[in-house]
Amino acid sequence: MSILDYATVSLDDEKKALVIIDQTLLPNETKILHLTEQKDIWQAIYELKVRGAPAIGDAAAIGIYLAACEIFKSKKDFDSFYADFVKAKDYLDSARPTAVNLSWALKRMDKVVQDNKTLAVDKIVELLKKEAQAIVDEDIWICRNIGEYGVTLIKDGDGLLTHCNAGQLATAKYGTATAPMYIAHEKGMKIKVFSDETRPLLQGARLTAYELHSAGIDVTSICDSAAPTVMRNGWVQAVFVGCDRVAANGDFANKIGTSAVALAAKRFGIPFYVCAPTSTIDLGTKSGSEIVIEERDGKEVSHMWYEKPMIADGVKIYNPAFDVTDHDLVTGFVTEYGIVKAPFEQGLAEVVKKADSKDK
Amino acid sequence: MSILDYATVSLDDEKKALVIIDQTLLPNETKILHLTEQKDIWQAIYELKVRGAPAIGDAAAIGIYLAACEIFKSKKDFDSFYADFVKAKDYLDSARPTAVNLSWALKRMDKVVQDNKTLAVDKIVELLKKEAQAIVDEDIWICRNIGEYGVTLIKDGDGLLTHCNAGQLATAKYGTATAPMYIAHEKGMKIKVFSDETRPLLQGARLTAYELHSAGIDVTSICDSAAPTVMRNGWVQAVFVGCDRVAANGDFANKIGTSAVALAAKRFGIPFYVCAPTSTIDLGTKSGSEIVIEERDGKEVSHMWYEKPMIADGVKIYNPAFDVTDHDLVTGFVTEYGIVKAPFEQGLAEVVKKADSKDK
Repeated sequence: MSILDYATVSLDDEKKALVIIDQTLLPNETKILHLTEQKDIWQAIYELKVRGAPAIGDAAAIGIYLAACEIFKSKKDFDSFYADFVKAKDYLDSARPTAVNLSWALKRMDKVVQDNKTLAVDKIVELLKKEAQAIVDEDIWICRNIGEYGVTLIKDGDGLLTHCNAGQLATAKYGTATAPMYIAHEKGMKIKVFSDETRPLLQGARLTAYELHSAGIDVTSICDSAAPTVMRNGWVQAVFVGCDRVAANGDFANKIGTSAVALAAKRFGIPFYVCAPTSTIDLGTKSGSEIVIEERDGKEVSHMWYEKPMIADGVKIYNPAFDVTDHDLVTGFVTEYGIVKAPFEQGLAEVVKKADSKDK
Repeated sequence: MSILDYATVSLDDEKKALVIIDQTLLPNETKILHLTEQKDIWQAIYELKVRGAPAIGDAAAIGIYLAACEIFKSKKDFDSFYADFVKAKDYLDSARPTAVNLSWALKRMDKVVQDNKTLAVDKIVELLKKEAQAIVDEDIWICRNIGEYGVTLIKDGDGLLTHCNAGQLATAKYGTATAPMYIAHEKGMKIKVFSDETRPLLQGARLTAYELHSAGIDVTSICDSAAPTVMRNGWVQAVFVGCDRVAANGDFANKIGTSAVALAAKRFGIPFYVCAPTSTIDLGTKSGSEIVIEERDGKEVSHMWYEKPMIADGVKIYNPAFDVTDHDLVTGFVTEYGIVKAPFEQGLAEVVKKADSKDK
């Protein structure tokens, strides 16, 4: 079964269940979970069974809708319903306190309740379902658009390289960096993807290689440090990566190692594209030097996945989770409103304006 | 105990033993092995308990000397002694058939026997001991010299970065890329070393970080892909790496990932030095494009070190063991006869000439 046959996150409204793939078991087992209890949904977010900023937002929106359904069974008046709703929302929000999309989606759902407090509670619950579906649909719409724009940058037979998992498994469908690949594959184009394993958490090895392969795309896993070699071999015609934040000047932050890929692409004259939903463009951040890089536990490098630690006791470990890539290494940003090429400052401001005007 | 307190490979002539550190147990256990039986020496080379081109050569030379001692107990005439000697030599040589230094050292030991066949066998055995010691001493002399030249490129307080293990553990003493670090440390200079973990075999994490730390040097382990970030942070003032082969024009092959480090160093204006015994300079190879890169089993990427595979069945894996770095990214080659700066063609030929004239 291809991964494109189902969404990473979806609602089974009949069974009142959040449906996800348990990503902690990948690539060794593909297990679909139907989660009906709030504590199980919380656990799934907390334990990264569902992960990736957009997918977490989707799961939270569906999760709080399911909570509302449950609450409504016993609380039919607005005040008692809303008191429990807020509790449920705060509970879900606590699963990953720093995940921006989690609280963003929950706030958006809360606004639906607050904006409609004059309606009967069963109507509010209906509106919550609609809003959750809208959040998921927008995610899919954004990724699909990124894919449609991105595929115009791909020629039949191209070799493509990506880093980390900005894939379907991080969104409801298509992913961001993988969207052009899935659309190319849908159109019957032959592509060959190189997927960096992405130390230390191995999202490229465990997730990206898995999902592209399951969709029937020709994928080859490589160590991060082998990217310059596959480029030197002439096997890569374009790089597509995701991003966590884009500054106004086009500098951007993404998973650690992205800047090394960009430097190699520049060296070998290979176009380097960043797939960026406009929500990741932060015009308030002037340049990459303003982006604070999260540093994570060194045990992810020395201990994780291993039976015995691979680094001697007492050795220090520096484990930055992201890095900054300078804008001069970027060929273009692929957004849901089109491709932004240099000069980035103007182009990025324009797509953000488009997105803002659509929101209004 | 500091790693500089003992040699990676040495002879205990009283106990007639080859003394090594079991590198397969590092970094979790530091176990010194005294090997007296030929089959144990063979096993140690085969199982990478001793590894690194120079160290393997040293171990083989000491190993065949120990075999000669044993043979001499029962075979006092040249012909019967030499027949057994050749058998022992071929046996050791079979432990790692592609390791150039293994057969190089054994051939050199064989030449001693052949050149002195008119002497009494006990005298030949004595000469073999001398030759084995000479091979080890030359290895140490070369590394020490590389260290002495290399340390002139380091300032007190510098941050240094290295990739893989071109360390003491790959030679009898000092290592190549690590030699300038050990000499700086000996001189009381404060340095701070960043050691790339070096996927997929983790020589940087398991060996380099271990050996520098055990010598009391400030060392921080990082994922390979974090090298550009530590450079961007301003923490690195020079890079020192080893090499497997240097072409006449200064392109060179080294452990996979070296070229990514070189690209990042260039980007951030950091000098990039290659520590190269003249034996690695191959003037017969015109440029890097002539260097054939060994491709190894993909299971090193997907399976090794892990309880369960990290890459889904059916996904292809490309696992090149080395990569080529272009000479324009190199600031200088540190050899045992001095530092070669651009234009490399001329400088490399000169140090090879010096080495050749010394051999004669």
